[in-house]
Amino acid sequence: MRKNFITQLEELNIKLLKMGAMVQEIIDVSVKALAKQDIELARKVYEMDDEIDKIELEIEMDCMNLIALQQPMARDLRVIATVLKIITDLERMGDHAVNIAKVTLEIGDEPLVKPLIDIPKMAKLAQNMVRKSLNSFMKLDVMLAEEVAHDDEDVDLLYEYIYTELIDMMIDNPNIVKQATKLLFIGRYLERIADHATNIGERVIYIVTGENIEIN
Amino acid sequence: MRKNFITQLEELNIKLLKMGAMVQEIIDVSVKALAKQDIELARKVYEMDDEIDKIELEIEMDCMNLIALQQPMARDLRVIATVLKIITDLERMGDHAVNIAKVTLEIGDEPLVKPLIDIPKMAKLAQNMVRKSLNSFMKLDVMLAEEVAHDDEDVDLLYEYIYTELIDMMIDNPNIVKQATKLLFIGRYLERIADHATNIGERVIYIVTGENIEIN
Repeated sequence: MRKNFITQLEELNIKLLKMGAMVQEIIDVSVKALAKQDIELARKVYEMDDEIDKIELEIEMDCMNLIALQQPMARDLRVIATVLKIITDLERMGDHAVNIAKVTLEIGDEPLVKPLIDIPKMAKLAQNMVRKSLNSFMKLDVMLAEEVAHDDEDVDLLYEYIYTELIDMMIDNPNIVKQATKLLFIGRYLERIADHATNIGERVIYIVTGENIEIN
Repeated sequence: MRKNFITQLEELNIKLLKMGAMVQEIIDVSVKALAKQDIELARKVYEMDDEIDKIELEIEMDCMNLIALQQPMARDLRVIATVLKIITDLERMGDHAVNIAKVTLEIGDEPLVKPLIDIPKMAKLAQNMVRKSLNSFMKLDVMLAEEVAHDDEDVDLLYEYIYTELIDMMIDNPNIVKQATKLLFIGRYLERIADHATNIGERVIYIVTGENIEIN
């Protein structure tokens, strides 16, 4: 029974890593579509998100069945509860990528009011955070999980920078208010994506140390 | 065993309704704090959110234990999986209320750039949606769940209205860009809260009809 449980848990982890890879890709594609103002690519983000929703449901049912059939002990139950939370965080990241794609479709081929430098930088950081946070879960590696929280500070700084820059640009030139607000929202979506990765890191710290850090 | 399961499920539902009431209150308080520019009240929102996080964890562990100890059949498992999703939606609403409180603290006692009319209206609608969506779950009432989706359209319209109004105001008067952007975000947070209530309604429709409507 116990051995079977471990095998099933390993299969669950593989699916979780797959979902994580899909989320890293959707973040990448959503920001690439924006930078290139590529409408087709932005539409692809919606399809990618459907796939993420599907794998989330699949993992969720796997977790339920694992609990019902294997009746895991307290600690294992906590690990499965964490998987259920992690997939919700990952799924939300997918939703935020869709939000980014939606804005890209709204902007269309209207010239961008500023060259995109920090937004792709935020996206890269966020993708890395997703990868790190899932690895920290697989290895129950607290130090790696803490690195994610550290990276989140960099993302927050970039967001603050973009925020201030865009507000100043709007004050100087009210004609750009509409698009600048849209870019502001994109900054916010990326900042939220990074928060969700941070949540995953904090959940890892929690299952290892029992220390409940504030999770947003 | 079966009887015990039903009793435990009823206890779970009572806790869920309690969490729902807490979420309705936090939405109410967060927007009241903004409208009255009441810093103390805005700070209270953070405490209220801590309580919501606590009850979420409690319900989550109850669900896990229920699954592990009672080994429910497929349909009951689906109900418990839905509870786990619903509490995540409710918890996110609490987070958005905190976001609103955060903006309120940032604005401080600086005079509001416009009288708040539609934002409190959105908040009232959203609170009602939370109540309705949870009732639809308790009664597995598809018609009530569909009403929530209908209400969401009203919230979306109000958000669009606020969005356009604030953008126009910023174009006319760049001096208000900073605060107007903050109010824009508040509109967005309320719109997201309503989306989460809609998710709950859609989950109810799903467990009753098996029809998987797009859930954001």
